[in-house]
Amino acid sequence: MKKLRIGLIGYGFMGRAHSNAYRKVGNFFDFEHECVLQAACARDAAKAKDFARRWGYQSVETDWRKLIARDDIDLVDICVPNNLHAEIAIAAAKAGKMILCEKPLSMNTPEGRKMVAAVERAKVPNMVWYNYRRVPAVTLAKQLIDEGRLGKIFHYRAKFLQDWTISADLPQGGAGLWRLDVKAAGSGVTGDLLAHCIDTALWLNGGIEKVNAMTETFIKQRKHTLTGKVEKVGIDDACAFLARFNNGSLATFESTRYARGHKALYTFEINGEHASIFWDLHDLHRLQYFDHRDQSLVRGWRSIHVSDGDQPYMNHWWVPGLQIGYEHSFVHQVADFIQGLETGKPAGPTFRDALETQQVCDAVLKSAKSQRWEKVARAK
Amino acid sequence: MKKLRIGLIGYGFMGRAHSNAYRKVGNFFDFEHECVLQAACARDAAKAKDFARRWGYQSVETDWRKLIARDDIDLVDICVPNNLHAEIAIAAAKAGKMILCEKPLSMNTPEGRKMVAAVERAKVPNMVWYNYRRVPAVTLAKQLIDEGRLGKIFHYRAKFLQDWTISADLPQGGAGLWRLDVKAAGSGVTGDLLAHCIDTALWLNGGIEKVNAMTETFIKQRKHTLTGKVEKVGIDDACAFLARFNNGSLATFESTRYARGHKALYTFEINGEHASIFWDLHDLHRLQYFDHRDQSLVRGWRSIHVSDGDQPYMNHWWVPGLQIGYEHSFVHQVADFIQGLETGKPAGPTFRDALETQQVCDAVLKSAKSQRWEKVARAK
Amino acid sequence: MKKLRIGLIGYGFMGRAHSNAYRKVGNFFDFEHECVLQAACARDAAKAKDFARRWGYQSVETDWRKLIARDDIDLVDICVPNNLHAEIAIAAAKAGKMILCEKPLSMNTPEGRKMVAAVERAKVPNMVWYNYRRVPAVTLAKQLIDEGRLGKIFHYRAKFLQDWTISADLPQGGAGLWRLDVKAAGSGVTGDLLAHCIDTALWLNGGIEKVNAMTETFIKQRKHTLTGKVEKVGIDDACAFLARFNNGSLATFESTRYARGHKALYTFEINGEHASIFWDLHDLHRLQYFDHRDQSLVRGWRSIHVSDGDQPYMNHWWVPGLQIGYEHSFVHQVADFIQGLETGKPAGPTFRDALETQQVCDAVLKSAKSQRWEKVARAK
Amino acid sequence: MKKLRIGLIGYGFMGRAHSNAYRKVGNFFDFEHECVLQAACARDAAKAKDFARRWGYQSVETDWRKLIARDDIDLVDICVPNNLHAEIAIAAAKAGKMILCEKPLSMNTPEGRKMVAAVERAKVPNMVWYNYRRVPAVTLAKQLIDEGRLGKIFHYRAKFLQDWTISADLPQGGAGLWRLDVKAAGSGVTGDLLAHCIDTALWLNGGIEKVNAMTETFIKQRKHTLTGKVEKVGIDDACAFLARFNNGSLATFESTRYARGHKALYTFEINGEHASIFWDLHDLHRLQYFDHRDQSLVRGWRSIHVSDGDQPYMNHWWVPGLQIGYEHSFVHQVADFIQGLETGKPAGPTFRDALETQQVCDAVLKSAKSQRWEKVARAK
Repeated sequence: MKKLRIGLIGYGFMGRAHSNAYRKVGNFFDFEHECVLQAACARDAAKAKDFARRWGYQSVETDWRKLIARDDIDLVDICVPNNLHAEIAIAAAKAGKMILCEKPLSMNTPEGRKMVAAVERAKVPNMVWYNYRRVPAVTLAKQLIDEGRLGKIFHYRAKFLQDWTISADLPQGGAGLWRLDVKAAGSGVTGDLLAHCIDTALWLNGGIEKVNAMTETFIKQRKHTLTGKVEKVGIDDACAFLARFNNGSLATFESTRYARGHKALYTFEINGEHASIFWDLHDLHRLQYFDHRDQSLVRGWRSIHVSDGDQPYMNHWWVPGLQIGYEHSFVHQVADFIQGLETGKPAGPTFRDALETQQVCDAVLKSAKSQRWEKVARAK
Repeated sequence: MKKLRIGLIGYGFMGRAHSNAYRKVGNFFDFEHECVLQAACARDAAKAKDFARRWGYQSVETDWRKLIARDDIDLVDICVPNNLHAEIAIAAAKAGKMILCEKPLSMNTPEGRKMVAAVERAKVPNMVWYNYRRVPAVTLAKQLIDEGRLGKIFHYRAKFLQDWTISADLPQGGAGLWRLDVKAAGSGVTGDLLAHCIDTALWLNGGIEKVNAMTETFIKQRKHTLTGKVEKVGIDDACAFLARFNNGSLATFESTRYARGHKALYTFEINGEHASIFWDLHDLHRLQYFDHRDQSLVRGWRSIHVSDGDQPYMNHWWVPGLQIGYEHSFVHQVADFIQGLETGKPAGPTFRDALETQQVCDAVLKSAKSQRWEKVARAK
Repeated sequence: MKKLRIGLIGYGFMGRAHSNAYRKVGNFFDFEHECVLQAACARDAAKAKDFARRWGYQSVETDWRKLIARDDIDLVDICVPNNLHAEIAIAAAKAGKMILCEKPLSMNTPEGRKMVAAVERAKVPNMVWYNYRRVPAVTLAKQLIDEGRLGKIFHYRAKFLQDWTISADLPQGGAGLWRLDVKAAGSGVTGDLLAHCIDTALWLNGGIEKVNAMTETFIKQRKHTLTGKVEKVGIDDACAFLARFNNGSLATFESTRYARGHKALYTFEINGEHASIFWDLHDLHRLQYFDHRDQSLVRGWRSIHVSDGDQPYMNHWWVPGLQIGYEHSFVHQVADFIQGLETGKPAGPTFRDALETQQVCDAVLKSAKSQRWEKVARAK
Repeated sequence: MKKLRIGLIGYGFMGRAHSNAYRKVGNFFDFEHECVLQAACARDAAKAKDFARRWGYQSVETDWRKLIARDDIDLVDICVPNNLHAEIAIAAAKAGKMILCEKPLSMNTPEGRKMVAAVERAKVPNMVWYNYRRVPAVTLAKQLIDEGRLGKIFHYRAKFLQDWTISADLPQGGAGLWRLDVKAAGSGVTGDLLAHCIDTALWLNGGIEKVNAMTETFIKQRKHTLTGKVEKVGIDDACAFLARFNNGSLATFESTRYARGHKALYTFEINGEHASIFWDLHDLHRLQYFDHRDQSLVRGWRSIHVSDGDQPYMNHWWVPGLQIGYEHSFVHQVADFIQGLETGKPAGPTFRDALETQQVCDAVLKSAKSQRWEKVARAK
């Protein structure tokens, strides 16, 4: 077995999700590479140690530069707030490390371009954690589309609805709340949630030509955890946009953290000439599929319980009828990354793929300001 | 147009449902016969008049014998409590009237046999109001089964769950509450609700060989509306039974009025070698269908919105996607009855068909007492 | 009983739905007024006679001007293509008739203004058939919002999805297909489907300040039934728009006839500070309700089967658990119209209310052309 | 950290599920004990080694007696076919090992009694893997019932439906198919699937007084994998039974492997005086809850997405809205077992608890033969 020695930076929600994936992948998938939890890195030494102990990392670092400098690290996993992605990733690329970076790729397109340039110059394997591509039902959707089952696509609609920031008493900034702080996050729901919707959409339905957006910040001021002062809220609480894809289909996208009743309701629907598809993160193990070629007498939306061995990834898990959950999408992503290493066909989304999502996000935010349609910049 | 002059006895829930059906059928279906609301009959003259005015009956009677004796009545519709069915039906048959009788046919099998003998001797068209056969989704189920799509049947399961008699303060007997009075109703959920389940089952899956039942009366005593006294409750509040069909399939049936959350949840499911079917009265316009012959990758339960023009009865109503409701099953039953008159192929369930349901009900009640399997008597 | 003598113009889908409502309302509701089907009017005499016979109209006319001139007509019901609404309505108002007009009110705002002026000058009772307000679940939504249960509203989203015009072989124009002919319909999905969504939205959530739309015509040319020639298609096949309501909430609206799997899927969702609501025309008898004030341990979306006697309109129908269908919304609208006559408090949507919907539609179509945000004109 | 050194016997589906649980529990739960994968045991040395390598077991054994004899094993986990449970468990108890045994406890009640006697005599911690108790939604159901929210219970109904043995070509016996071989399994769906339903039922609703069952073997003969000959099938393919609980509630139970469309559809519903509960293994992260005390206007079944931090076990996983899957029930069971060790309050189901399930299973199979009601033996 070849060792894939991982150095992980960050110990939050994503740090846990990735560590779990590295630990599990070898139990369920067969590869030449074995993941080794080599080092965990966090500024707070006590937290780093605690995290390392819990997850079985063999060492700790408190300075990410030292982590990157180590010879015994093959892969750097970046699980820190968005404003730190670029600096770390570029340094890691220079150090010749493989890089797995949390989404969104960067604070903005220019920063993203530098990151892409860095990994491509260094020729290091790289990937961004847009994990929802690897939910089996979503991968199945991709497969059905690629087989041409839907025919010409007319419509795409996606939503990502949450309700956790409705209270005006919630502060911004600091651990767990950096997503409300524009300096750390870059944007609100656009980079956090719509970025997921856009990544899936580009993968399933191709490039987006132009967008027309509106954003809103319902709570204008919140106390800042780090400064202790009430400060202006710089992020978008909600964002909706119209879009036109290159293939001629029309789209609506919407995200908010002010939708009571929805904890993490990412949904998408695609309407094609022959068939339609619907998926929903709250029941992520199901795919809804309507095929107009079914006999009209018994035509209906099929609720596919994606747990059979011939459905994507499912032969690696339990038996038909038994569902997997959220965390498994990360295991699949690690598996595909390793398979990319071993086959020489890198799995997406690479930094370059994720830059395209960044470009759409930037066009969305630009349109929300300009109040007009904005073209999406071509990736280059 | 030939006139079909109707004399209706009773003015309760079913009196309304039937009157509505007679009034509507000609607007949506084309026949040589036209329903004429000739006379409404009820013991209370004021109520009879009020009912007749509201529904457009041209005359009233307060004695059903007089109604039956009238020359200008072609069809007698019996919508009174169960204990009155036999006497009226037998007299009406002797008078040469067509008869539509509310379900269940009779208080018990012997009474039912006399009713069948009467209508068959008199050769009068006859039918029992097991209306759920004519919900389009249920009719579609019948069609799919008859086409052989399910293959050999392994399992049948039906339930009819309500929750309206949980309060111990509810009295028994009198208008609206005669269903709790064993003298008027004959039995509780068995004759009221399971009779529906059994009628559908016999129609869809053939005869039942034997049954094994348990019943329960949760509230043992209730005040009687007519006597003003607290009296023993003679009906079954709940009944569940195992059954074996003649075709070798196994079944479970259950009904209760003590299931919180279910107002009128009649459901059935059939599992065959190749396909399964599920239906639910709370969403009566849908049929759930699973076809194992679908490609496994996209196999799932199909939720069929039964509102297309090629689905049973639906070409008579609105446009695809627009649902009809409970009352339409009665309109369809009138339509099929008239079609039976015009084609000479009587539509079911006839009195004879309904006698078979009665025989199953009697075997169920007998088994609940004997605590053993009981054979269902052969209809004759 | 006072007679409400109805003269109905048109014999299509809506002519049937309205006639059914007039016939049924007196069976289920108690009023001083009785609907009398006095005359049916259609250009084709044979069709008019056939329609009158089927529905029980006492006479026929082939020229709507004659119908309006008759003394024995109290109410004119306009069920003809959109391009005829204004002329007939203005003439009927001048003749002092009450007017029920199919939706949308008019071809455009200027025409609509004239119609409003005509009925207000003539002081005749008037109403537009935006029937979905009277689906009990929708009326319940209105009640919950008016009680303040949702609190401040953040988001509104509505869709109306169909799939019946995907085939390029479908012609435009003529009976049943006039909705594809811009000269008869004025617009495509905007006036036909989004108008329903907008009417409900204005009723539930107040006025719309501005909109930003895109439209598409997927099939650019279709054979015209009337000319026999292939002609340019002038209607919008699909339309999506962003909106801001006066109350500060954000909205997305979308409609298309190119969404496989959806026959008539009108849905709306409203997210408020405390609670959210979702409704769906394909299961119109249910309302989904989420109340954040429920204890968190057992908090969830409630699927309310709107069939209890204390829920809107339902005490007039059957018993709890038994659903009504599409057609009943029209019965309720007639009932409310009559109640308005008898109480002196006219029920909406009046012509004036419907003009506001027209103004939103016009802003939407204008925005689709201008490619920018457009303010909605103030009603006056 | 104290070490909990595990010796696992068997390497099949359950061997994987348990190993995964031991590996994960420490990442998500905090205990003084740390699970150590000390030894994996299987007759086939190559398979044992492969399994040990994949899951990280530090050693292998090919004879379970040797495993039990080892001093460095604290806990023996029995994941082999049912016919081997008793011998191994009794030997392990004598050796003073803690025991986790796969369900059902034993081939029959007498065997089970010996196992209970053995562990109680040896005073070793013991548990049976009825994992569904630890699906968070099921645990939540238990909590709601224990709080008295349902009030007096009227009805319990459970089903476990599969469809994997419909083909007559499927052989019996051998790896993966021992569940079809009565010598290895003891019974068919009764011990395999209904045992789960019964365990949950006894836990949620107390003891069962008597049962009345029917069973069926649809395919009478199948080729035996081990002998190569066509042999009589000794197991029950399907089983349904009526039951009465000690608390007066009525129940129906049903299981089959001949229900097309259901891979592993374990469902249960409980109807109480005030509230009802429904759960479904195909969407295991949801609990359906109906509370009649809700205001009638907005009363409905609540679909609770059990993923909030205050719902059972969920504070250990991700964030609200993100579902866990089947495998997590095993992690929870290990966590509760360890907590039982540390608090001195053993978690159930112990061998003694599981014996009660065995007694119900035996009464069911006895009733299916006797064709009468059979009392459930009292545990002792």
